[in-house]
Amino acid sequence: MSDLGALLWPRRVALIGASADGESLRGRIFNVMRGHAFGGELYPVSRSHREVLGLKAYPSVADLPRPVDLAVIIIPAKHVAEELERCGNAGVKSAVVLSSGFAESVGAEGSQMQAEVRAIAKRYGMAVMGPNSEGFANVAANLCPTFSPAMEAGGRALLPVGRPRPQLAVCAQSGGMGFAFFDHGRAKELAFRYVVTTGNEACLEALDFADFILEEGKTDALLLLLEDIKTAETFRGVAEKALRAGKPIIVNKIGQSDAGVRAAASHTAALAGAYAAYQAMFQRYGIIEGRDIGEMVDIAAGFLAWRTRLPRGRRVGICTASGGGGGWMADACTAAGLEVPELDIETRQRIDVHLPSYGTSQNPVDATAQAAAKIGYAGLAQLVLPSPMIDALAVVMTARSPHNIERQREALAHLAEVAQKPVLLWSYTLPAQRSVAILSEAGLPVYTDIGNCTRTLRLMADYRDLRERFLRPIEVGSACAGAAAAVREALAEAAASLCEWEARPLLARYGIGTSAVGTLSATADEAVSALASIGGPVALKVQSPDILHKTEAGAVALGLTTREDVRAAYTHVLANARRHAPKARILGVLVQPMAERGREIILGVKRDQTFGPLLMVGLGGVAVEVMKDVALAPVPLRADEARAMLARLKGVRLLDAHRGAPAGDVEALVDLMVRLGKFASDHADVIAEIDLNPVLVHARGKGVSVVDALIVKGTNSPPLIASGGG
Amino acid sequence: MSDLGALLWPRRVALIGASADGESLRGRIFNVMRGHAFGGELYPVSRSHREVLGLKAYPSVADLPRPVDLAVIIIPAKHVAEELERCGNAGVKSAVVLSSGFAESVGAEGSQMQAEVRAIAKRYGMAVMGPNSEGFANVAANLCPTFSPAMEAGGRALLPVGRPRPQLAVCAQSGGMGFAFFDHGRAKELAFRYVVTTGNEACLEALDFADFILEEGKTDALLLLLEDIKTAETFRGVAEKALRAGKPIIVNKIGQSDAGVRAAASHTAALAGAYAAYQAMFQRYGIIEGRDIGEMVDIAAGFLAWRTRLPRGRRVGICTASGGGGGWMADACTAAGLEVPELDIETRQRIDVHLPSYGTSQNPVDATAQAAAKIGYAGLAQLVLPSPMIDALAVVMTARSPHNIERQREALAHLAEVAQKPVLLWSYTLPAQRSVAILSEAGLPVYTDIGNCTRTLRLMADYRDLRERFLRPIEVGSACAGAAAAVREALAEAAASLCEWEARPLLARYGIGTSAVGTLSATADEAVSALASIGGPVALKVQSPDILHKTEAGAVALGLTTREDVRAAYTHVLANARRHAPKARILGVLVQPMAERGREIILGVKRDQTFGPLLMVGLGGVAVEVMKDVALAPVPLRADEARAMLARLKGVRLLDAHRGAPAGDVEALVDLMVRLGKFASDHADVIAEIDLNPVLVHARGKGVSVVDALIVKGTNSPPLIASGGG
Repeated sequence: MSDLGALLWPRRVALIGASADGESLRGRIFNVMRGHAFGGELYPVSRSHREVLGLKAYPSVADLPRPVDLAVIIIPAKHVAEELERCGNAGVKSAVVLSSGFAESVGAEGSQMQAEVRAIAKRYGMAVMGPNSEGFANVAANLCPTFSPAMEAGGRALLPVGRPRPQLAVCAQSGGMGFAFFDHGRAKELAFRYVVTTGNEACLEALDFADFILEEGKTDALLLLLEDIKTAETFRGVAEKALRAGKPIIVNKIGQSDAGVRAAASHTAALAGAYAAYQAMFQRYGIIEGRDIGEMVDIAAGFLAWRTRLPRGRRVGICTASGGGGGWMADACTAAGLEVPELDIETRQRIDVHLPSYGTSQNPVDATAQAAAKIGYAGLAQLVLPSPMIDALAVVMTARSPHNIERQREALAHLAEVAQKPVLLWSYTLPAQRSVAILSEAGLPVYTDIGNCTRTLRLMADYRDLRERFLRPIEVGSACAGAAAAVREALAEAAASLCEWEARPLLARYGIGTSAVGTLSATADEAVSALASIGGPVALKVQSPDILHKTEAGAVALGLTTREDVRAAYTHVLANARRHAPKARILGVLVQPMAERGREIILGVKRDQTFGPLLMVGLGGVAVEVMKDVALAPVPLRADEARAMLARLKGVRLLDAHRGAPAGDVEALVDLMVRLGKFASDHADVIAEIDLNPVLVHARGKGVSVVDALIVKGTNSPPLIASGGG
Repeated sequence: MSDLGALLWPRRVALIGASADGESLRGRIFNVMRGHAFGGELYPVSRSHREVLGLKAYPSVADLPRPVDLAVIIIPAKHVAEELERCGNAGVKSAVVLSSGFAESVGAEGSQMQAEVRAIAKRYGMAVMGPNSEGFANVAANLCPTFSPAMEAGGRALLPVGRPRPQLAVCAQSGGMGFAFFDHGRAKELAFRYVVTTGNEACLEALDFADFILEEGKTDALLLLLEDIKTAETFRGVAEKALRAGKPIIVNKIGQSDAGVRAAASHTAALAGAYAAYQAMFQRYGIIEGRDIGEMVDIAAGFLAWRTRLPRGRRVGICTASGGGGGWMADACTAAGLEVPELDIETRQRIDVHLPSYGTSQNPVDATAQAAAKIGYAGLAQLVLPSPMIDALAVVMTARSPHNIERQREALAHLAEVAQKPVLLWSYTLPAQRSVAILSEAGLPVYTDIGNCTRTLRLMADYRDLRERFLRPIEVGSACAGAAAAVREALAEAAASLCEWEARPLLARYGIGTSAVGTLSATADEAVSALASIGGPVALKVQSPDILHKTEAGAVALGLTTREDVRAAYTHVLANARRHAPKARILGVLVQPMAERGREIILGVKRDQTFGPLLMVGLGGVAVEVMKDVALAPVPLRADEARAMLARLKGVRLLDAHRGAPAGDVEALVDLMVRLGKFASDHADVIAEIDLNPVLVHARGKGVSVVDALIVKGTNSPPLIASGGG
């Protein structure tokens, strides 16, 4: 592993390509770096100048008086490899390459130069950021090797003044966006520790820096901007580390379109796109997806303030001096999936003492402007907060006047210190910068966007819940332990695809469905006698590892009750199958009893190129195909994760009791999902897809039926994500 | 009608309760009013002072030297009526009552005082705003009778400096929220004409002011904040006037919870809540619902800038100097339901000339920082905008540095002037206030929230589309013209509810279903002979105006094929019906052929207390009940509105062709909806509910079947909303 410490915390830095021309990018870097009180040494390297803005310059990195830890390189792309080689020779431990014109260019030349950079970095064990990076800022060290205008000195300080507060870091592939987070967060008086922009990621990815930052342990929340994840293993490590430590990651994944969805053999495949896989991974680890820069910064602000006191539930108290504002907040809470319950009578009595006749303590607590002015926002919050009916508090207020906030400063800081539940402030007027500063120092984030405020409350509750589940020991044991070896052997011997007849025995070893459902018949007579022994209506299904979609091929007949029907159907489905796939190897025709009625579910596993096998569940045949109502998760998965997947389905309530129909056996479905997840993860290296379609969920206590099954092998083995639980 | 002109544009104003105490609300009003250069005369009225802050004060409104147009009243609630009476006697034309303690208080006294205010206002024909109002601001006249801190003088001007620009108005019930819009909009350099806060609305509602403002014709967009609508007719008038004039209304309705849903007789009722009715009305008139103050202001800014050049479609071009920013914008456009198509080859060639090898002209157009700096944002926009592939342009930029924006000022203003399609700017860094001012004056709104930017683009396209449809002559003729009288007569004679057998003939007069489906049988023998004449499987349904929900009563049997089954079922359903409702009047048992298969739809009409009859459509029996997937619209409605309703259903794609099943006959469904709408609106005064459940939509060209029908009468007649079309 290369030395990220040398890169982010160098004592001596060389700026290769230093220039005094403030209009050029080179000159701008120099100005930005010199504008902040970096405690280490800075050596300009320039071929043409002996001095740059009063600092002695050196013709080459080889000529420096002392070895440097970090080289900041901003010279034309075609010279970068050569220079990096020179740095390696000179014992430079790390480099930031800000030059453009590498793999992001049209043509092969740029990519080739980028490969050279990678090779050199590897050869010398150098930690290299970029190329095409916009550099980074180590705010804590006052080190800003970047030309980002957001980091220019002058005006506001890089860190909020006053009491030190929890720190935030940004890791972004995109330079412009990376520093934009800083720009937004600084206006909210947040303390950034690092802003890292990784550009083309020839060597180090954004997640490598995230890992370093988590290991260092001084940062309490991470903002990530990702275009792609190059190493799933790094992602998994970072995600798990962050969740264990309770340090939320707030991410935006650029490129959410379906363009990257590849065609695949089963129905599962067509529904799972690349972005959906990212979302599944984010959901597993409680990584929060943001949609807007300001929103992501707002979410981080809430977590930074309340990280050790996240809400235990979704019940919100609201206090306000504006009736309209309270109503708006109640609506916004409800829209965010939060509850706004009536307060308990003791709390109400405590509040009512302070209210005029036109106030109300119900929730929202409308104290009226008069009472609010008298007891102050903090006083009001202290009255409401102890209610056992609420898990968090939203204070509707106006932070427009800094004098008004200044006056309440002590009380607000005290509130932030002693509150056992989160308090978020929503200012319906725009707060003065001074108000923001006071509130930030007090430890109370102030929101101007009501949706960001309520979403943060919701996310904090969800994060706490998911984290507590994640940290619990795995619920499912090794019920399938002995089965793996036998299945592995059978899979090795099988052809490229396994039809239902072949797949069932393997799945049954893991308790997925039953081994033998029906009779494989080789003649119409055999089919007819199977009907007799089953005794009820039957289904006929041609079994062939070469026909994956039997219904489309006409190779299925359902609900047959008479000998004549079975005989006719036998001939018919076989003929259809042969017409559909003349060369198909046909094992016979499976005669099965018709499954008992139940809610139709589609369950499958598909291998994602980056993250490995993902389990997919969807409700109802039509719903899944027309409405794309599916949920994904990496395997293996725990029962609580399976339940959470079901809860994400828009149509989840279709499993509830409904108009006389009893509730579905959700626990049996959850068990099936867990078993399928285990199966898929045990054999991830050889299985590309599994398709259980449909699965029927019967009434509670009656279990589930796997009506059809298909396994498609695939030897192209992507990195497998191991269990996140435990 | 009282004189709103006198209230909003007075020449002489009396401040009743004037005080020099700057800490009191009275004193604050005086200070706020005196802080702005109002051109009229201001008379303080005070019992205790002969002079207030240098102005001669008068002991009573009766003592004023000249009659005043407006009295601003801020005295204790118990004195207000008396004072208002005095104003009426003195010929004062209008009043703003800022005092609190009226109907918003606990107890009857406040409501009684409010009723007095109302009566006095009526007696004297005075235009009265409030009580419990926070006053208003007529920014154009520099008149601010309010104690809102947002209107205090000092610091920034009330209007943006420089070129006059399109104007905006706020009408809000809530005072704090009303002025908060101004506060947010001022920071975005928008020009407000009025901020009106109506408080308890004893006399004038927010919509009365909206009407005045629209009639005046100087305001180009309206922000509304409503807790309720008191007069549906006023709403309809305002909404239609605004839409015809192309002046968008952006609204937030406070109180969106389901608490107000009243229980009702049919399934339709249980799904339609009060807020849903508001939404249906908003959707009819293209009124835009906002969720956040800043968002609503952002939406208004887009409309104000591009009101005469709204986009003709949803295809967006993106240009950027940041690859990451362009990708983010593309994702945000897609999330907002916009398209980001590849540009045409001619446009691309025109762009490519300016790009380095690491830029791209595909769309997003990533010009790179270098090229963008050279040609500028306006130059880049001019290159992309003419593409026939796009309807609007989003420019990803950074407005952090005012110098950079200042330099491009002329070019940007020129762009805004000549562009034939909307151009919205998204600054990923926070813009300097000076940048916002320059861009605002240039006529280019700048967004900091990417979601607000893309949502505005989408809303502008939708608004244009809806408005063009609205202004087109009504599509449906008077096919049902002759039917109304006969139906009216029949309804007058009918009992409180009409079962299927009774309802069908009336509905059929409007072309809704067919008059006689099946045979009403009085004995089991008659039912059996009906089976014989039908020849296929039949349904049996007990017909009784007293049994509205036959299925729940067990009064229905389906799919009967044999004489024995029909005979048994006849006895069974009748017995069930009698057990369910022993006193029910039973007309007989209807024997019907089973309907041909089709997609199940629920169609109904329900009377909303405020807005009158609303048509409801939902897809699929389970979907509508479990997932609440329904759409509402006021009646009558046009075919394009019926289509738009269907498009709003989450499951609308279930009507598409699917897995061999042909597409549903959507046009037949639309025709049915239009006819039902006409029926409901013609008889709105006597019908409370209509329930067609289910309606089956067959394959395209095969029409629809109304399988069951129910009409519930109701004489409690709410105000009826007439057709919005034409």
